[in-house]
Amino acid sequence: MRTTVQKYGGTSVADVPAMRRVADWVAHSHHEGNPTVVVVSARGGETDQLLRLAGEVNPDRPPREVDQLLATGECAAAALLAMAVRRLGVPAHSLSGPRAGILASGRHGAGVIAAVDTTEIRHRLADGDVVVVAGFQGLNAAGDVITLGRGGSDTTAVALAAELSAARCEIYTDVPGVLTADPRVVPNARVLPGVDPNVMAEMAFAGARVLHSRAVELAAMERVEVHVRSSFMPGAGTVISGRAVEEMLETRNSIVAVAHDLDVARVLVRTATSGRDPAPEVLAVLAAHTVPVDLVARSGPQEDEFRIGFTIRRSDVDEVLTPLREAVAPLDGRVRVDAHVGKVSVIGMGLLNRPECTARMLAALATAGIPTSWVSISQLRTSAIVPRDRVVEAVSLLHETFGLAGAVPSMATV
Amino acid sequence: MRTTVQKYGGTSVADVPAMRRVADWVAHSHHEGNPTVVVVSARGGETDQLLRLAGEVNPDRPPREVDQLLATGECAAAALLAMAVRRLGVPAHSLSGPRAGILASGRHGAGVIAAVDTTEIRHRLADGDVVVVAGFQGLNAAGDVITLGRGGSDTTAVALAAELSAARCEIYTDVPGVLTADPRVVPNARVLPGVDPNVMAEMAFAGARVLHSRAVELAAMERVEVHVRSSFMPGAGTVISGRAVEEMLETRNSIVAVAHDLDVARVLVRTATSGRDPAPEVLAVLAAHTVPVDLVARSGPQEDEFRIGFTIRRSDVDEVLTPLREAVAPLDGRVRVDAHVGKVSVIGMGLLNRPECTARMLAALATAGIPTSWVSISQLRTSAIVPRDRVVEAVSLLHETFGLAGAVPSMATV
Repeated sequence: MRTTVQKYGGTSVADVPAMRRVADWVAHSHHEGNPTVVVVSARGGETDQLLRLAGEVNPDRPPREVDQLLATGECAAAALLAMAVRRLGVPAHSLSGPRAGILASGRHGAGVIAAVDTTEIRHRLADGDVVVVAGFQGLNAAGDVITLGRGGSDTTAVALAAELSAARCEIYTDVPGVLTADPRVVPNARVLPGVDPNVMAEMAFAGARVLHSRAVELAAMERVEVHVRSSFMPGAGTVISGRAVEEMLETRNSIVAVAHDLDVARVLVRTATSGRDPAPEVLAVLAAHTVPVDLVARSGPQEDEFRIGFTIRRSDVDEVLTPLREAVAPLDGRVRVDAHVGKVSVIGMGLLNRPECTARMLAALATAGIPTSWVSISQLRTSAIVPRDRVVEAVSLLHETFGLAGAVPSMATV
Repeated sequence: MRTTVQKYGGTSVADVPAMRRVADWVAHSHHEGNPTVVVVSARGGETDQLLRLAGEVNPDRPPREVDQLLATGECAAAALLAMAVRRLGVPAHSLSGPRAGILASGRHGAGVIAAVDTTEIRHRLADGDVVVVAGFQGLNAAGDVITLGRGGSDTTAVALAAELSAARCEIYTDVPGVLTADPRVVPNARVLPGVDPNVMAEMAFAGARVLHSRAVELAAMERVEVHVRSSFMPGAGTVISGRAVEEMLETRNSIVAVAHDLDVARVLVRTATSGRDPAPEVLAVLAAHTVPVDLVARSGPQEDEFRIGFTIRRSDVDEVLTPLREAVAPLDGRVRVDAHVGKVSVIGMGLLNRPECTARMLAALATAGIPTSWVSISQLRTSAIVPRDRVVEAVSLLHETFGLAGAVPSMATV
């Protein structure tokens, strides 16, 4: 049998009854004869509570110590889940991320997995154990625990699935799968049975919270088949794989979902007098701080003025604003940040060949009086920056415009 | 400057104000120019809460997973305390027990420190950092975290002080020092300014909760000077060192304290028919389970009957009862356990040369109608087993009998 990797999020292990339900599922996989590796997040609310406590102790929240603190949450959840599984007579063994061979690099709070050494896991699986791995964490070159940033546990699961050549990576969460839009915003949003990994990566980057973009990118790169399902209700969920989508040709060349993101800030850098392009300095700063960037647009020189505009996460602004200002000061550059914005995106395939999708999107927003400042088009996604307080309205409008609530994937929408 | 090791218990870091107070003291040691290593327990109540949760998830509480779970408590406290220290502008760096080089062996839940590799700590101290180490835990040969059992954080602190040749090891707790008796039982119990390490080890073993016996033994063996002080109120506390006691000759050859222990069970093993001595088998079982033993008495053969009686912790009974029964079954042995007992001890030096101490103790108990079953005398301690519900009365009585409440150490008591 090929190994199965399952990942359970914080809400799936939030309390003892939830943990017991998860243990049943893990035991079921084990009894089917699958060598089973489980990746688990901290119990729901635990990470926030630890972060709150850290802020009370030290408002600066020193990143290295915050990582040592937060990592305890996943370790505790892994130990508890292993106990719950053992209670069912199934041998289970918890491992911290470092102990499980997750090696990571990058800055504290935003680590990226650099390598995976599965020696210890394989050893445990060979003994017949279920292995429960603390997600969201790895060991860096300094020998410290480093956390993997948002969606880190998903990435842990996919990386392990890739390295163990697992049959599949099952991500259990609190929604029934990948939806055509956020169901809290669009009540009639629909579960997509299959999504292309590249499309999924775009959705995730555009704000779909179900799976983190880095996890999806890794899955696409390593050809790991990811199943997204609810740990609370039965259902087939969503299969993310190139193969799944080939079997559903009707989903190609159409808009499949609307995504939105409120964790967005718009940054504009201008050098009006020096006549020098700030882009290399700006991008170097963002790279040095491992800050992901979107909607990058550079213009100039126009009357000696260069401009580079882009969006980053609101939560990354504090991290990079001072370094950015320092980097462009020698060029007489000015940095302006606007956090009163949100990002709305439509997701599909082949959008560059089909500009009518973007046209239809912009027309619908304009008709509704929703101003769009920056717009960016790629083969898989068209995104627009809109005022923060119009985002929800824009998502509902576009979900309806592209007929996504229909019972079957909608070919006729564009 | 020589290194200072400080240890703070769970009540000293129970909440944010307590943690800030501790941080002030740590910063003070750093500013005095001492390379400072801090050992910290889990926040007060955290360990109990995790244990409760473990019991809900799996009533068997599988020991290996319980250790992985409990160890997170000290790691979290260490990270939080490091943050609190950094807030004062003092560089601080938290390390888990394994990361700090604490290597341990033994069974889960009752590990013993086997070796200490201080490379990482010395490296951090050389950088000018305060190093905050998670107590109560080490790394075993299997690569797992193992917890050190009761008083484990004290032992961590003393082991680090020994290995770092620290000037002293300061143990901060919720009582003002080592007292002549438990102040909850004897309100006029007095702080002892100095105690001989061997006397202290006997006191700890006899039930004085302020410091664990293993920590004291290690301190005596490695000649580490231990200072016990309150982290809540000012005061000189108690110095535990041979040197300290030499300077206070009046404390020699007298009873210095009364200790008691309610975590006691009396075990009697008899082999009436086989004519074979069960002692080697019995002691081998206790050793195999790392269970400490006290008041060992062996008798026989008398009409073919051998007996061995001893006390162990009540909390260890479940661990060893079945193995004991199995070990002595081939000898026709019978094992009887009585948990309705407690242990009362008077502590002093040279007691074997001064049997009048023991005589006075037994006379006082007899006069008060408190029955004593087993009695054991050593050079540093006389202990008696009394009914569990008479322990408190016996402690008060003996504290008064030996005049321990006096303002100065009482030479005239015996």
